[in-house]
Amino acid sequence: MLIVLRPDATPEQQLEVEWYIGSLGLTAHPIPGTARTAIGITGNQGPLDPEAFRRMPGVAEAIAVSQPYRLVSREVRPDDTVVDVGGVAVGGVEVVVFAGSGTVEDRAQTLETARAVRDAGGAAYRSNAYVSPDRPYAGAGLGEAGLELLAEARAATGLPLVTEVSEAAALARIAEVADAIEIGARNMLNVHLLHAVAEVRKPVIIRRAVGVTLRELLLAAEHVVSRGNPHVLLCERGIRTFETVVDSFDINAIPTLKRLSHLPVLADPSRGIGVHHGVAALARAAVAAGADGLLVHVHPRPLHAHADAAPSLDPAQFAELMRGAGAVARAVGRELAGPA
Amino acid sequence: MLIVLRPDATPEQQLEVEWYIGSLGLTAHPIPGTARTAIGITGNQGPLDPEAFRRMPGVAEAIAVSQPYRLVSREVRPDDTVVDVGGVAVGGVEVVVFAGSGTVEDRAQTLETARAVRDAGGAAYRSNAYVSPDRPYAGAGLGEAGLELLAEARAATGLPLVTEVSEAAALARIAEVADAIEIGARNMLNVHLLHAVAEVRKPVIIRRAVGVTLRELLLAAEHVVSRGNPHVLLCERGIRTFETVVDSFDINAIPTLKRLSHLPVLADPSRGIGVHHGVAALARAAVAAGADGLLVHVHPRPLHAHADAAPSLDPAQFAELMRGAGAVARAVGRELAGPA
Amino acid sequence: MLIVLRPDATPEQQLEVEWYIGSLGLTAHPIPGTARTAIGITGNQGPLDPEAFRRMPGVAEAIAVSQPYRLVSREVRPDDTVVDVGGVAVGGVEVVVFAGSGTVEDRAQTLETARAVRDAGGAAYRSNAYVSPDRPYAGAGLGEAGLELLAEARAATGLPLVTEVSEAAALARIAEVADAIEIGARNMLNVHLLHAVAEVRKPVIIRRAVGVTLRELLLAAEHVVSRGNPHVLLCERGIRTFETVVDSFDINAIPTLKRLSHLPVLADPSRGIGVHHGVAALARAAVAAGADGLLVHVHPRPLHAHADAAPSLDPAQFAELMRGAGAVARAVGRELAGPA
Amino acid sequence: MLIVLRPDATPEQQLEVEWYIGSLGLTAHPIPGTARTAIGITGNQGPLDPEAFRRMPGVAEAIAVSQPYRLVSREVRPDDTVVDVGGVAVGGVEVVVFAGSGTVEDRAQTLETARAVRDAGGAAYRSNAYVSPDRPYAGAGLGEAGLELLAEARAATGLPLVTEVSEAAALARIAEVADAIEIGARNMLNVHLLHAVAEVRKPVIIRRAVGVTLRELLLAAEHVVSRGNPHVLLCERGIRTFETVVDSFDINAIPTLKRLSHLPVLADPSRGIGVHHGVAALARAAVAAGADGLLVHVHPRPLHAHADAAPSLDPAQFAELMRGAGAVARAVGRELAGPA
Repeated sequence: MLIVLRPDATPEQQLEVEWYIGSLGLTAHPIPGTARTAIGITGNQGPLDPEAFRRMPGVAEAIAVSQPYRLVSREVRPDDTVVDVGGVAVGGVEVVVFAGSGTVEDRAQTLETARAVRDAGGAAYRSNAYVSPDRPYAGAGLGEAGLELLAEARAATGLPLVTEVSEAAALARIAEVADAIEIGARNMLNVHLLHAVAEVRKPVIIRRAVGVTLRELLLAAEHVVSRGNPHVLLCERGIRTFETVVDSFDINAIPTLKRLSHLPVLADPSRGIGVHHGVAALARAAVAAGADGLLVHVHPRPLHAHADAAPSLDPAQFAELMRGAGAVARAVGRELAGPA
Repeated sequence: MLIVLRPDATPEQQLEVEWYIGSLGLTAHPIPGTARTAIGITGNQGPLDPEAFRRMPGVAEAIAVSQPYRLVSREVRPDDTVVDVGGVAVGGVEVVVFAGSGTVEDRAQTLETARAVRDAGGAAYRSNAYVSPDRPYAGAGLGEAGLELLAEARAATGLPLVTEVSEAAALARIAEVADAIEIGARNMLNVHLLHAVAEVRKPVIIRRAVGVTLRELLLAAEHVVSRGNPHVLLCERGIRTFETVVDSFDINAIPTLKRLSHLPVLADPSRGIGVHHGVAALARAAVAAGADGLLVHVHPRPLHAHADAAPSLDPAQFAELMRGAGAVARAVGRELAGPA
Repeated sequence: MLIVLRPDATPEQQLEVEWYIGSLGLTAHPIPGTARTAIGITGNQGPLDPEAFRRMPGVAEAIAVSQPYRLVSREVRPDDTVVDVGGVAVGGVEVVVFAGSGTVEDRAQTLETARAVRDAGGAAYRSNAYVSPDRPYAGAGLGEAGLELLAEARAATGLPLVTEVSEAAALARIAEVADAIEIGARNMLNVHLLHAVAEVRKPVIIRRAVGVTLRELLLAAEHVVSRGNPHVLLCERGIRTFETVVDSFDINAIPTLKRLSHLPVLADPSRGIGVHHGVAALARAAVAAGADGLLVHVHPRPLHAHADAAPSLDPAQFAELMRGAGAVARAVGRELAGPA
Repeated sequence: MLIVLRPDATPEQQLEVEWYIGSLGLTAHPIPGTARTAIGITGNQGPLDPEAFRRMPGVAEAIAVSQPYRLVSREVRPDDTVVDVGGVAVGGVEVVVFAGSGTVEDRAQTLETARAVRDAGGAAYRSNAYVSPDRPYAGAGLGEAGLELLAEARAATGLPLVTEVSEAAALARIAEVADAIEIGARNMLNVHLLHAVAEVRKPVIIRRAVGVTLRELLLAAEHVVSRGNPHVLLCERGIRTFETVVDSFDINAIPTLKRLSHLPVLADPSRGIGVHHGVAALARAAVAAGADGLLVHVHPRPLHAHADAAPSLDPAQFAELMRGAGAVARAVGRELAGPA
């Protein structure tokens, strides 16, 4: 922590700050400047809370020097973490694509979509049976029946299964079937759910919400890792900005998360641009920027999809996306990979 | 819903859109323009999903005309809703202030703070026993023991109690003690928790998260009201923008929410500006803009507060805030009010 | 400047940073910490540029401690600056309202509006003759002819005149007539225009653009003050955020600018909320938050206004705004004031 | 324009709106719905201003259907525009890289940098002699002397020259030397400067400012094209969001601008991420997303660069960026190209 005093801070105010630092068992290091004095603090074991310093008389700013996350940081673990999702390695040299429809609709649609994903080279099937409805009068998904359809699709295709959990009550059942559990943007700050998935020891994909900082995303991951589940994957899916023609996608998040953390980084180009005609371009960009994998909405008849109709690709469009993403992956020295 | 075609849309594409509208049992109303054609849609009972239209060939835009919330809208109920919080009417002519420390620390601190709130004219005591820690290595609050201290403070002062719930598991116990339940910003998109508080039939304060639109806030309220609990209060607490010197507070949200909805609107000037020296000014502004109430952090010794040290006011500063907010309330034809 | 080293920085990298600091004639103050080392820098006369430090091996962050503005800061001048706008003192105990139509339309409209502003207690007439059109096919305003109408309105009502300049070429002529010159949001980062108005020595109102930080606004003011024109007024007019129902207004900017700077702070509630039915509430909030004055759009027949129809108030609505803003001004110990 | 009435709009209010539409010489098309009525408007030659409608009683919303730009839109011109920058075709199948130091420092640095750019395959040299200082106490660049050094670098390397103009006064002289003129983010809303460069008939690169929408960027381009200069290139350079670890880059802007407009689209990965270690990844992503060219900061000794030290690449890093961008360009069926 660095405490910056105001230029008009009195000697008494400076002494008061130094005394308070000492009262916490820490050491104050005054740095007198031309216009103002700063005070460095050392001796703390973890991050200090700047709030109290900010309200002391004579203090202009309290600047945190350390980050509040540790285990997920690359400083603690320089090597990339590779997470095994049902036999698919994520975070290594290969780039993986998890794809499927936004929700499970029925048996025929599920099997048809899963086969299209497999045939185009997808590495896992991704779809949701338990749905957290964002509109009050929308349905809640098929639940258990949908989960059974997903298990059937997994058996029929050999693809690992990625599916979302939105409440702790459904977690145990979902964890029996899923190869990786996804925490949606609406729940990624729900600490209780993060703690629940930490107990399950299945891979957890944490999606960054549209108004959440990279630091908060890394803190959410730290909640899971610090409770004993190191199999965490981060996912960028777009942020909320003033631009309204299309959504905004924080492409810089990809190299930045790779630099700050050793965890695998995924990108969701479907929700990241929100319209089907832009998905393939964004998918290529994400791979070019260093993403370890993609989450893509695919549906046999997107116009009739129960959810995510606008960004969903039909099987031919998805196959085209795979070709484009594969070419870019090779251009950056990687390969697209399917299940082992 | 209004479908706007591209200028280069073919007659076949237009027919396809009109056919699709008909297939949904709805009526298409083409409006040919100089440069492009639009198609109005009528006959729908609820809001239509624009996603499918956006992906049809020849379609430039699909513009929703109706809002996805109904019961909370002023169009459905023109008169202000007045919510009773333990005998305190919120949403009527009087402006109420709910105040207290961010977390329950111990018995002495709790009683001292509650008395300071009462003595300065606060309408309810507000503090949290069950805490949802945003940092992985922070504590989780006193839980049940803290709730008992809050009940004691309520008995000692006669002030109604407002406290937060962050997981469904603790809800039943909290609802026994609290006069109003607060849903924090980290949980306001957690649909399962919204549905749970809808069952409880206690007043619910929903705080807008920093990256959430007014429409999403109203949708969260609709989740609760549509499940049978009409006692909902909305709270603006600041939004996340590019400005970093202090947080940003969306003051326009106050008159806008009052115009769009009949529900009471509260403001949190403490987290809304984030530093103690700005809280009183923001509190006055919120009342001047039409807020029905304020949520304020108060602590006997803010420098030593376990949470929210930077914005917390000491009792003298809080009394000063009450004087200023009261003067502004009278200037707009209202009064500050305490418990009955 | 504080340089924070990475936890894995080598001793050689630290020495390199210290050597570089010395090569600039400055002094390095290493502060060894548990996890990482920071290096304070002293001896600089002005602000240092962090860019070079950020690219040195082993450096995690370079944190500026000083602000790049000086003359406009309250640290340099603790007392409020009071600016004289044609006999009206701005920044003192009285709150002033500058009002008028967005553009000069014709003689009758100009005189009628100016009289309505005067009759309701406005302190200055504000309208634009030289218009910077934001749409390629929109008109450019009446120019010189409009300026003459403004001069006539000024003579007829006795109100000082506030008008915008958008290019240096028109400045000399505008400065002959205007009592204060306004720099619009589209030009507030146009350094050449800022330097030009610095030469004129008339009061200058700088409007913060929708994507500009408070620091950048203060830098724009510093450009003018440091070139010899101390008569600068700051104006908050709303910022661009993700919220789209109405524009966002950064109400926290008002107490924050008053704290950081000694310059008067104005608010524009008309463009700040963008719709006429919210203007009065926002005007009251701005005064409650400490604004020294308001800029308000008034038009005799807003529906037919050539510009800014949505937020413009008719004379009766403006008189009502003045009553409301006046009551709030008195509640915070101030008064609305007209011309001397 | 579509006018949406409030559910409680009276028949008289609807008639009033329809009468007003008729008074403008336009045709009203009422579309009665279940909950509310909408009114389509046809007959307008150009875009209508929604402002007046928004203030009519009974009106909930006025939604613009047409865009305010025309000539730059792909609807008007389906084929890509290819702009010739000193013999380099931009907007065709080849991807171009314009690179150089932020400012001209001296003769040796300029020639050394230009040669490094040429040797690595850059298509043009880009650097600034006339600088618009964002800090009040910073220097203003070498001006005319710098321009002469740029002309010398152009002669020595054969690379076309791209340089910035920030005020109309310097435009004629800059246009004599430059092959393309750049309008910086601080000036892209400066309509007078846009109109001035429209007269010059040299290619104009318009950089999107950090708080500006895509629509506003296209409007700025329309200002230039509609005044007779069709040689406009658009440039995305990052936007301002709540994220602070690094800047945000709106990668979706690239496919979206290509879809909305026929103009070439450039990307600036240097300012787009702001730190040298992320520039190459962002450059690759921009090419993968469809950018027609890149603007890159290069300096022989970045640590000592007078401007833009943090993102600047040294010659070896730049050569590496060129290899990576070239591989991605080939993966998407394009090639990096140098001067003819």
